[in-house]
Amino acid sequence: MQGHEIKVTFQPTGRSVFVLPETVLLEAAGRAGIILQTPCGGRGSCGKCRVRLVDAPPDPSPASIGTLTPEQVAQGYRLACCTAVTTPLVVEIPAESTFESTQQILTADSGADVEVAPLVHKKRFTLPPPSSEDPRADLPRLQAALGDISVSPTLMRVMSGFLRDNDWQGTAVLSNHHLVALEPGDTTADGYGVAVDLGSTTVVGKLFDLVSGRECAVASQINPQVTFGDDVISRIMHLREHDDGLAELQAATVACLNAIVSELVAKADVRSDEVYEIVLAGNSTMQQIFCGYDPSALGEVPFVQAFEEAQILSAASLGLKANVAAEVYVFPQIGSFVGGDTVAGIVAARLDQWDEPVLFVDIGTNGEIVLANGDQLLATSTAAGPAFEGARIRQGMRAATGAIEKVIIRDDVAINVIGDAPPAGLCGTALIDAAAELLRAGIIDETGRILPVDELPAGVAPALQARLVTEGHETRFMLASEAEAAGDEAIYLWQKDVRELQLATGAVRAGVQIMLRRAGLEADAIHRVLLAGAFGNFIRRSNARRIGLLPQISGDRIRFIGNAASLGAKLVLLSDRERDYAARLQTQTEHIDLSLDPEFQMEFGMAMIFPSADFDACED
Amino acid sequence: MQGHEIKVTFQPTGRSVFVLPETVLLEAAGRAGIILQTPCGGRGSCGKCRVRLVDAPPDPSPASIGTLTPEQVAQGYRLACCTAVTTPLVVEIPAESTFESTQQILTADSGADVEVAPLVHKKRFTLPPPSSEDPRADLPRLQAALGDISVSPTLMRVMSGFLRDNDWQGTAVLSNHHLVALEPGDTTADGYGVAVDLGSTTVVGKLFDLVSGRECAVASQINPQVTFGDDVISRIMHLREHDDGLAELQAATVACLNAIVSELVAKADVRSDEVYEIVLAGNSTMQQIFCGYDPSALGEVPFVQAFEEAQILSAASLGLKANVAAEVYVFPQIGSFVGGDTVAGIVAARLDQWDEPVLFVDIGTNGEIVLANGDQLLATSTAAGPAFEGARIRQGMRAATGAIEKVIIRDDVAINVIGDAPPAGLCGTALIDAAAELLRAGIIDETGRILPVDELPAGVAPALQARLVTEGHETRFMLASEAEAAGDEAIYLWQKDVRELQLATGAVRAGVQIMLRRAGLEADAIHRVLLAGAFGNFIRRSNARRIGLLPQISGDRIRFIGNAASLGAKLVLLSDRERDYAARLQTQTEHIDLSLDPEFQMEFGMAMIFPSADFDACED
Repeated sequence: MQGHEIKVTFQPTGRSVFVLPETVLLEAAGRAGIILQTPCGGRGSCGKCRVRLVDAPPDPSPASIGTLTPEQVAQGYRLACCTAVTTPLVVEIPAESTFESTQQILTADSGADVEVAPLVHKKRFTLPPPSSEDPRADLPRLQAALGDISVSPTLMRVMSGFLRDNDWQGTAVLSNHHLVALEPGDTTADGYGVAVDLGSTTVVGKLFDLVSGRECAVASQINPQVTFGDDVISRIMHLREHDDGLAELQAATVACLNAIVSELVAKADVRSDEVYEIVLAGNSTMQQIFCGYDPSALGEVPFVQAFEEAQILSAASLGLKANVAAEVYVFPQIGSFVGGDTVAGIVAARLDQWDEPVLFVDIGTNGEIVLANGDQLLATSTAAGPAFEGARIRQGMRAATGAIEKVIIRDDVAINVIGDAPPAGLCGTALIDAAAELLRAGIIDETGRILPVDELPAGVAPALQARLVTEGHETRFMLASEAEAAGDEAIYLWQKDVRELQLATGAVRAGVQIMLRRAGLEADAIHRVLLAGAFGNFIRRSNARRIGLLPQISGDRIRFIGNAASLGAKLVLLSDRERDYAARLQTQTEHIDLSLDPEFQMEFGMAMIFPSADFDACED
Repeated sequence: MQGHEIKVTFQPTGRSVFVLPETVLLEAAGRAGIILQTPCGGRGSCGKCRVRLVDAPPDPSPASIGTLTPEQVAQGYRLACCTAVTTPLVVEIPAESTFESTQQILTADSGADVEVAPLVHKKRFTLPPPSSEDPRADLPRLQAALGDISVSPTLMRVMSGFLRDNDWQGTAVLSNHHLVALEPGDTTADGYGVAVDLGSTTVVGKLFDLVSGRECAVASQINPQVTFGDDVISRIMHLREHDDGLAELQAATVACLNAIVSELVAKADVRSDEVYEIVLAGNSTMQQIFCGYDPSALGEVPFVQAFEEAQILSAASLGLKANVAAEVYVFPQIGSFVGGDTVAGIVAARLDQWDEPVLFVDIGTNGEIVLANGDQLLATSTAAGPAFEGARIRQGMRAATGAIEKVIIRDDVAINVIGDAPPAGLCGTALIDAAAELLRAGIIDETGRILPVDELPAGVAPALQARLVTEGHETRFMLASEAEAAGDEAIYLWQKDVRELQLATGAVRAGVQIMLRRAGLEADAIHRVLLAGAFGNFIRRSNARRIGLLPQISGDRIRFIGNAASLGAKLVLLSDRERDYAARLQTQTEHIDLSLDPEFQMEFGMAMIFPSADFDACED
């Protein structure tokens, strides 16, 4: 049985998703990549997640009535966290409700907002022309107007001519106290920067107006390095085995960024030479390949990275399409597998500013975990493996069209397939869903074994029993029949899939345990779990917690914070102070190497066993 | 009558000069480019100018006996200032007697010596290899050994490989707190720098060992820009009239420096990539052309230079042969015509450290004048014109083989010709000599007129009268007869030559007058006149003073300080602190534009008249 899906379209982006009936709008928006503000934890008390339903809004929930004005309700505003989808909807998202419009959700405890004060800024100037009475040299004349700036020899070579050709006036582009460019006329209103999230698989670039802070365009590309290997280790192997391997990988990355920049400037109708600054966040291997710093040492024990502090490179010398004087800021790195993307995430989450313990988790092939306990910040990385991305799962696939992405098991199975297509496989979230639901149904036991029909506890629904197939010692569970599936095979959750999930989950869970122990905390002391990364957005919290991937705490303490790396890159791009903040956080964060912890193996072994019961079965 | 010349050879350089009998050794050494220490002003009281006469030393002068030990006298040591040349000599110059060995003569009042502490220095390091217990990133590991250094992306790209390939040890080349290079093994004993005096006509480079401070080699080239014009204005005109003119002049200059560096490293038997630093001093036009900064504005009113503060450029980006990370320091500039060479001279002369007023004069096509009066430093430049370099003089020539370089007039004329050749013309010093001597003889009057025989005062020797040739209203004075001369013409001092000399001299003299007035000083308050530049070395002080080129003060207050620009460049190369000192002096020095001084024209007119009498006819 495939669930009947309902289409929800979001404006102004125009993105649509198909969701099961009764899905809460907040989650539907998240699946469309729109993270709404939920400082109250989605309990309907803060009113921050309000959206407008364009046609036929459903009756307002009591929470909507309590937090919205009657005018807003009449205009179709509702709270996304308290509104269930029952009919196709067109939903307008007010800018102020989105997560990225402010960092309210992240800075709820500090109340800080993000200033737009980028390192690169512009200043209009008009100089008195030289005369016999005022024969100052050109540079001090310019400095008198712009402050004690430094000017590179390259720019010095054009400065004198520029000043004379433009009647001693124009616009200076400044980066900190360094002159970046001189432009004729008044161009103070124009100036752009690009924030890049350089993922191993996907590269996302966002173009920002450095004057207003406005996001002008988004573009993404598959990281072309995937042709050299799916994960960072296989890419490092490639470059170790080929003399020009590093140059090849770097060139591919730069070409990819250039494609992104080209798309961004085309979308925003600006010129690439108006791009004055690029900020890039990625894991240590991605960052080092981009910089051209040999990452070989990241591929073997003792796993050593080249640098910790942020790197500043010249865009021109890297061959990047941008203003000739543009600089590229590459995030600081905490450890070999706790890279710039994690630092960017820590920046975005303001992890040092929470009054109570907070756990930051970014789940992918590596699970990066940061525990903030007041001033103490502990970071680690754990090799979750690619199970969450659908790899090593027998019928696994990436979260693309045809992937089962949600599984609900009651008396029978309901699934949700991306793109409203016949199912072709299952992605990471469905893997978690299926395991959690089967645990609840008693079909999987705590050791992770899928029970054959004759070992099932009493009361398992007949429709579920009918889905179990036992062959030899192993049992598998059918998620979609041959008739329902896209191919000519039924789609199963296999015993081996559950083992892979246990390994992946156990690694993260053991990592969290070790971190808590280092900080002297129990799991229930965690005030917030912040789930970062694309995968985090789609995960069902209660199910992640059921299988032990997330700590056993109340669901309202678990928050999705979206692409925190991208957000951190944006913050550093838009505000000079954020660079200092990133540097401070990098210094402040202690790197924990789990492989050196004597207790890790034991914790890992224990974490392979699923939690014995639901913490709180009724929510999410 | 050509004077009988005596050959004097100096060791260890092996340079020889031919001098007139009774020439003092101090002067002979100066003509060979060897400036000896004379803190006592050459009066035989300090003993600093001692030299050793290898064969048959003359009897010691009373001063030599008074200041040298009997052993030294027995070994052939004599005081150069008190020893006259009567027979051919081979003279050994002890390093400690030369001007450049220390700055004693310049720093006599402060007693400061020059430390060898260049910006570029080396440090040997051995790092603990990374381990699981110490997995620090490569850069912080290196920083732990070398301090908080910055590393360029270019060097970051090789750092990790270098450390692993060299067992975590090697030698770091540091420039201030910046890592310049990594070298295998212990190379702390090797490291070189080049100090360049980029003159409009001649370019001189000196190679220094940055560890010991030792001068390893000297090389010079004619500035190839001379093919684009003799003076800076004609070169500026050239580049204004040709689209690629600046690039052409810059390329020629870089090629010239590369030829010099090649010669230097070949002489010293080192590699060009061991040259880590280059310091360059030149006038504003030369410096801007070298940097590639358009000097057009230096060629027209109001004469504006591009920069004042020192410029730091990458040798590699300029195409200079040196270590790929070498930097080029280009001296700060005070004004359009008071350039980096003058700043270097001020540095060398420690002009701010004298307790009494000091006048620094560098005479060439432009006469640069700096008056130091305690903390007050006033600098100006005056267009002396090319007369001192033999140009615009009817039978003038550069100070090359065949040039009359010295003229002595008693009952008849004695001349000295460079290279012991038949005279082909006269150079700047001979012009000054001839005019001064003819003034003394009464043959030129105070207005500069060469008197015809019938207007001569009584007592002019018949041999001199015989040398006067009057044609129309103008009279000329024969310095060498047709028979003596190299060509088929006699060599004369023409009336027009005297007028050119008056213009050149008047400009310098008026400049000095204005400077003194600005400082509220009279000429006799000047404690020292420091004569810099190659021309200054060869000038006869009493004659320069007789024609008014130098102030009317006692000759022992006038000192030759040699190529002060080259010395200043050396100081900055060898000591980081000298950079700060140069920057302070540039800031401290006030630029006086003579063309804006309402009194300059009047002063200039008055200065055209020669002084009425010798200040002190018996010395020099």
